Amino acid sequence: MISKEEVKEILEGYNKNKLCIATLCSHSSLQIFKGAKEEGFKTLGIRVGEDVHVYDAFPLSKPDEFLHLEKFSDVDKLEEELREKNAILIPHGSLVEFVGEKIYDLAVPIMGNRQALLWESDRLKMAEWIEAAEMRMPRTLSPDNIDVPCIVKFPGAKGGKGYFTVKNTKEFDKKIAKLKISEEMLAGVLIQEYIVGVRFYPHYFYSPITSGGFRAGNGALEMLGIDRRIETNIEEIYRANSFGLNPEPSFAVVGNSEIILRESMLDKMLKIGKKTVEASEKLFGGIPGPFCVETICDEDFHFHVFEISARIVAGTNLYPQGSHYSCYIYKEPMSMARRIAREIKNAAKKNQLDKVIY
Amino acid sequence: MISKEEVKEILEGYNKNKLCIATLCSHSSLQIFKGAKEEGFKTLGIRVGEDVHVYDAFPLSKPDEFLHLEKFSDVDKLEEELREKNAILIPHGSLVEFVGEKIYDLAVPIMGNRQALLWESDRLKMAEWIEAAEMRMPRTLSPDNIDVPCIVKFPGAKGGKGYFTVKNTKEFDKKIAKLKISEEMLAGVLIQEYIVGVRFYPHYFYSPITSGGFRAGNGALEMLGIDRRIETNIEEIYRANSFGLNPEPSFAVVGNSEIILRESMLDKMLKIGKKTVEASEKLFGGIPGPFCVETICDEDFHFHVFEISARIVAGTNLYPQGSHYSCYIYKEPMSMARRIAREIKNAAKKNQLDKVIY
Amino acid sequence: MISKEEVKEILEGYNKNKLCIATLCSHSSLQIFKGAKEEGFKTLGIRVGEDVHVYDAFPLSKPDEFLHLEKFSDVDKLEEELREKNAILIPHGSLVEFVGEKIYDLAVPIMGNRQALLWESDRLKMAEWIEAAEMRMPRTLSPDNIDVPCIVKFPGAKGGKGYFTVKNTKEFDKKIAKLKISEEMLAGVLIQEYIVGVRFYPHYFYSPITSGGFRAGNGALEMLGIDRRIETNIEEIYRANSFGLNPEPSFAVVGNSEIILRESMLDKMLKIGKKTVEASEKLFGGIPGPFCVETICDEDFHFHVFEISARIVAGTNLYPQGSHYSCYIYKEPMSMARRIAREIKNAAKKNQLDKVIY
Repeated sequence: MISKEEVKEILEGYNKNKLCIATLCSHSSLQIFKGAKEEGFKTLGIRVGEDVHVYDAFPLSKPDEFLHLEKFSDVDKLEEELREKNAILIPHGSLVEFVGEKIYDLAVPIMGNRQALLWESDRLKMAEWIEAAEMRMPRTLSPDNIDVPCIVKFPGAKGGKGYFTVKNTKEFDKKIAKLKISEEMLAGVLIQEYIVGVRFYPHYFYSPITSGGFRAGNGALEMLGIDRRIETNIEEIYRANSFGLNPEPSFAVVGNSEIILRESMLDKMLKIGKKTVEASEKLFGGIPGPFCVETICDEDFHFHVFEISARIVAGTNLYPQGSHYSCYIYKEPMSMARRIAREIKNAAKKNQLDKVIY
Repeated sequence: MISKEEVKEILEGYNKNKLCIATLCSHSSLQIFKGAKEEGFKTLGIRVGEDVHVYDAFPLSKPDEFLHLEKFSDVDKLEEELREKNAILIPHGSLVEFVGEKIYDLAVPIMGNRQALLWESDRLKMAEWIEAAEMRMPRTLSPDNIDVPCIVKFPGAKGGKGYFTVKNTKEFDKKIAKLKISEEMLAGVLIQEYIVGVRFYPHYFYSPITSGGFRAGNGALEMLGIDRRIETNIEEIYRANSFGLNPEPSFAVVGNSEIILRESMLDKMLKIGKKTVEASEKLFGGIPGPFCVETICDEDFHFHVFEISARIVAGTNLYPQGSHYSCYIYKEPMSMARRIAREIKNAAKKNQLDKVIY
Repeated sequence: MISKEEVKEILEGYNKNKLCIATLCSHSSLQIFKGAKEEGFKTLGIRVGEDVHVYDAFPLSKPDEFLHLEKFSDVDKLEEELREKNAILIPHGSLVEFVGEKIYDLAVPIMGNRQALLWESDRLKMAEWIEAAEMRMPRTLSPDNIDVPCIVKFPGAKGGKGYFTVKNTKEFDKKIAKLKISEEMLAGVLIQEYIVGVRFYPHYFYSPITSGGFRAGNGALEMLGIDRRIETNIEEIYRANSFGLNPEPSFAVVGNSEIILRESMLDKMLKIGKKTVEASEKLFGGIPGPFCVETICDEDFHFHVFEISARIVAGTNLYPQGSHYSCYIYKEPMSMARRIAREIKNAAKKNQLDKVIY
């Protein structure tokens, strides 16, 4: 991984009056470009193919400039060009998925702490993180000892695609055989107990350069919204059931919908964010910027944490004009993307870019 | 059907500075009147009975004037009065349902292309349209050959009321007998394969008079929102199941809820709109104005199109102040109804009303 | 219960230019404080413990001042202090739950009619109210005669916690024994037929001091939004089912989500509010302020009323910036909390505080 010093040096060479916000043209880029424009930034979209129709359809989100790649994983070829343009890269789910390990060495400043991207991408590290934060986590089971209904996840199975359910070891073996899962894939499998309850995906923003507010670590934590993921076919599987169909459940994320939390539980939700931040500071230097803690709330009002996303999540696309919660923090419509852009602006003003960018 | 020439002639007789937006007092009229007022139009509500309480409750949507009918299907009695008032009629689901075939001959200018209303009302024509657009469509089965779970729809069964499910021909025959379905009704039956997935109902607006933007046919296509329909009792049938009840599924539309789509799939969704527009141009002269393509997204991210609504849909009522998507196109809160009003305003300015009204 | 005269006298002693809006720090207090500020009021939060982190996180909702209690039921200890501060107390679900019967005698002005809080807290009285309003109500069954699937509710089982399902008397007896329900608890049990359909929770505001609008009783009725409650685990129980799990359904409210109603049914929904107001006027002097009528809509478009909440409900937290419906009534973003504050402001101006406060 490129060192913090090296990135700091790059940042020092940047023209702070001409900073540019860049991201890959996918995931939450419409929001990111809009938010960046609202805060006065130049914007730059990294795209593959000729596929930019989406910005013709949504012109207020069209970046000022495009850079072209054959595939997203070639992003390192743009290093120099991005630096020349004083670009700060905003990582999102598609970037993490398509760029892969190259992201760690990329000699371009990235919003947040790139260590966090490493920790979210590795299932063992993530479990360590959740444990360090002293949060409830669904049990992880070994293939030969499955005694409760579980969800089975493979590394690289992004956006829920390829997840499946098992009730016991026998069913696991059968499905693995049927799906022709390789030994290598199998080595990285995560078999997680299914927790009965309701899913809540809170969207946090952690600012190490803000005083006041809700304190977490050495900074302030905001909760800017909550969503639930819409996954096909599980989302409407009960409809299929009522037609007499019993399809295998699948979990491919295709969208998001809005939800709010009972007010008396907000404190608990804020503390989940706080503990995630503070554990990250101990483990790998913190998590400035946006993140999400994927939870299930059981009937005893306990939140079970089954994942952390250490960057902007697509659920924030529900709130390009602010949310049920951001309006209690900001008078202007504050999307997560705009909050990111504002953090960069504030950090630049305070000469603290290195605190929020690595 | 009244000719395009005749409607054009009526429009030529209109005082373009005193255009009035009219619709039946139902379906999406609150939105339509509000949107029309926001764009500076006089508004006119066509109502039946004395039932206008809803506008007392929602005064910003109260039309400037009411015309009274005993039943909506008498709307042709108002032809002269509507023309005197320079009225342009906005068609919606209730208008299509209650006015029926009279709409085709109505000597009053109608927003959009009234050919499209004919094509959406005829199941065979609609299937032809979907096929011409080269979109995936659930299989249509004949009564004596039902080999997969299906949803059964009758002509005139509006808003999902009266739809039912069948698993095979035997069950079909049994239900038809039980419901005492007439031979005539049976002739118009649509038996459609049930597709497992998640429903998305995108709200499009097609403007043949706008340059730039996302191109479709000779005009620009906008996507202003997405919804899912709330149908009783299927929406919460799993709750009934958990009480030990197994009611027959029913599909009466009673509301709508918000949803957004994974950003990387927006391009696909825009293309569905584009193909729908372009097929409509080939088949019947195009579809200026609002429309909706009812889809189901399966676990392989394929959209299956099971219906087209060739006019404003009630799901747009979710976004009277704009949507998660309209904010990427317009700085002001842009509802579908306001977009319609603005199109009429723009067309009037450009002397192109005949391009968006028939 | 303290008399209306006594409360009126307290109000007469208040400095009308320095009215202060107070509530317990829970339930919908973020919305209540924000709405009060927007209408220019001083705000006062009554809190227990040191647990005020939530206002650090949401500073625009932070009350101007806090009063501290060891437990909410000690609120009567603050009577004098609240009166000195010209405080008007806004009741919400947590206040009703935690303060209990003390609320009736509290010598502090309360927004609305405190009689209504009594009527909502007593299941028999509530049934009388729903019947007087001539609304459909699910059947109430006696423990020894359960012949349909039912939901079983105990007094004090707030927020749905502790509700359970039964299919027959045998199952009821078994569950009662298993849960070790006391005789006393059992005396207050409500066994309510489960109605198959879709839930709608409309948010009404009734103003006895407003002329015009949608008339109910001697005042005007507004509908400011609709929600559905999110209850764990019933909300996602079908997911558990698809994992091969069959947990007992539970109904603990953990959040809310947005929904809109078919426009042609709004008239019916408004009339439900109107009948609730008018029955309340006959039975106990009316229900000024916010209330909610919990309904289920069956496949014949009938609304079944299974509960009334005679104060602000947490579902209004979905709309701190206004709703799909408030925008048809108000040009400014009008939350339920802001509407409450405005009512107090208007009543103070007109010298009619005693009409909306008791």
